[in-house]
Amino acid sequence: MKFCSECGKPVVLRIPEGDNRPRYVCLHCETIHYQNPKIITGCIPVSGQRILLCRRAIEPRLGLWTLPAGFMENNETMEQAARRECEEEACAQVEIEGLFALFSLPHVNQVYVMYRSRLLNDDFRAGDESLEVQLFTEDEIPWEDLAFRTIHYTLEQFFSDRLSDHFQVHTRDIQADQPPR
Amino acid sequence: MKFCSECGKPVVLRIPEGDNRPRYVCLHCETIHYQNPKIITGCIPVSGQRILLCRRAIEPRLGLWTLPAGFMENNETMEQAARRECEEEACAQVEIEGLFALFSLPHVNQVYVMYRSRLLNDDFRAGDESLEVQLFTEDEIPWEDLAFRTIHYTLEQFFSDRLSDHFQVHTRDIQADQPPR
Repeated sequence: MKFCSECGKPVVLRIPEGDNRPRYVCLHCETIHYQNPKIITGCIPVSGQRILLCRRAIEPRLGLWTLPAGFMENNETMEQAARRECEEEACAQVEIEGLFALFSLPHVNQVYVMYRSRLLNDDFRAGDESLEVQLFTEDEIPWEDLAFRTIHYTLEQFFSDRLSDHFQVHTRDIQADQPPR
Repeated sequence: MKFCSECGKPVVLRIPEGDNRPRYVCLHCETIHYQNPKIITGCIPVSGQRILLCRRAIEPRLGLWTLPAGFMENNETMEQAARRECEEEACAQVEIEGLFALFSLPHVNQVYVMYRSRLLNDDFRAGDESLEVQLFTEDEIPWEDLAFRTIHYTLEQFFSDRLSDHFQVHTRDIQADQPPR
């Protein structure tokens, strides 16, 4: 951030009075510009024993496999956002079944909110941001070609919970230097 | 948003190519300025049968009672944010015990993440943003003077779960026109 989005004058980075963190501050109109983490919502689309994955057509991690997920928008609920991402990336309709995982990624200022979901029909295909979409059984999951650690953790935990037939809500902090497993 | 935070030129509101929502776009440097929901993290500080509440010293809802909660900052985890808010508002140290509630508030572009927590000692006092802080039993909760519906729902659900001695993770969408109960 270099300029004030309210008045267009240059901003400076300083700790405002009564605060304890540096913020971009406009000395002209006195606006303080707060920057906060973003939410990524997604789901695990389940069809019988299989899970729907998307192969990314965009950076980062172009060509790698992911669960449908993306930035939550203003004016929507988390579940609406998860369903929308599934429609955009896999042209797939799902019913959200429950909250599944919540991750903090402080090094990239992101929070992941992942849901279990039921694929409503087999009428899916690659959306604009996907090269292809495909159903995988647990044995077929391309573990070495998953796009993000959040997706790895989500799938790993999902199959583990499914084994015991008891789905929980999982929380986890993911730091910059953690290995994928 | 009126000016581009990257180059200082005026922005326009339009749907970028390949997108489906209006964004603030800079026609000069071509930056697209995305706006996303913010996360509010908080906790229920529990001491035996009592809960710690804070009476707000700031707007909105000055003078009303709330659980310690506030905007999550960059570079922290959700649990760190919840503990920090408790320290700032009630000068209280807590141990986070588990995720308790997740709310979507699409009309104000907020997501609430609330944790159960254990107050580590009785060394608490009002922080800068509180007029006073006080422990309440369930019977003493000032239900009519709570600051936000999210706090109302959280406390109501907490006492209900406590009765059955089984704490779950609760999710709820809160719309603009919903009554407090």
